[in-house]
Amino acid sequence: MSINKIEHIGIAVSNLDASEKLFSQLLGCEPYKREEVASEGVITSFFLLGDIKIELLAATNENSPIAKFIEKKGEGIHHIAFDTANITNTLSEKSQQGFQLINATPKDGADNKQIAFLHPKSTNSVLVELCQDK
Amino acid sequence: MSINKIEHIGIAVSNLDASEKLFSQLLGCEPYKREEVASEGVITSFFLLGDIKIELLAATNENSPIAKFIEKKGEGIHHIAFDTANITNTLSEKSQQGFQLINATPKDGADNKQIAFLHPKSTNSVLVELCQDK
Repeated sequence: MSINKIEHIGIAVSNLDASEKLFSQLLGCEPYKREEVASEGVITSFFLLGDIKIELLAATNENSPIAKFIEKKGEGIHHIAFDTANITNTLSEKSQQGFQLINATPKDGADNKQIAFLHPKSTNSVLVELCQDK
Repeated sequence: MSINKIEHIGIAVSNLDASEKLFSQLLGCEPYKREEVASEGVITSFFLLGDIKIELLAATNENSPIAKFIEKKGEGIHHIAFDTANITNTLSEKSQQGFQLINATPKDGADNKQIAFLHPKSTNSVLVELCQDK
């Protein structure tokens, strides 16, 4: 099976400090790490619930995809990430199935992952991330 | 801990048949059931990935919350549902913490659950469902 499980849910936030507090209270647990991904213009904060993560994403500059998302749609759920054992093969499979790739080849993401996105136009307006542990 | 885990992710869709095909292909598995919740004006279709579900929701009438959501925002991720062992206690706790309740008391949902929603105004624009097995 090319997709194993839901790896995380990404949530776009304007103020990472405030949202960390809010989600700590909501979920009843603390974030286990923060990590900046400079190439993406984001700083992330991760919560673990069972074996699924919730990733808060805040923009670190105005050209960040998260800044643009919030400008257009406001804060809220940004993407669902699915774990795959071989991201290159899964991208190829999804492309052949007719899904539109935002990233034809994987790039570095947070949390020691290789990641690539499928275009929401081809996925019922859901931004889908595929990811694989490095 | 009042919230145990992510139970499912809800995705609003316009055409359940078409979206079932799309997600079957994307996820590499078939939906395991369809269920109508007449009181909510929705028909749902469930996929299981690991122990997390993906719930597609289509409106069955124009007054359905899903019809209104799609009219306002388009198709896409609608809510995250968290499993709780005692939904009444968790609602009370979340209210005391300052979260705004859409449903002060639980109501019947799909998949043999009692459910209640928190208002996205108080949860970073994320529509949060709490649910408990009946």
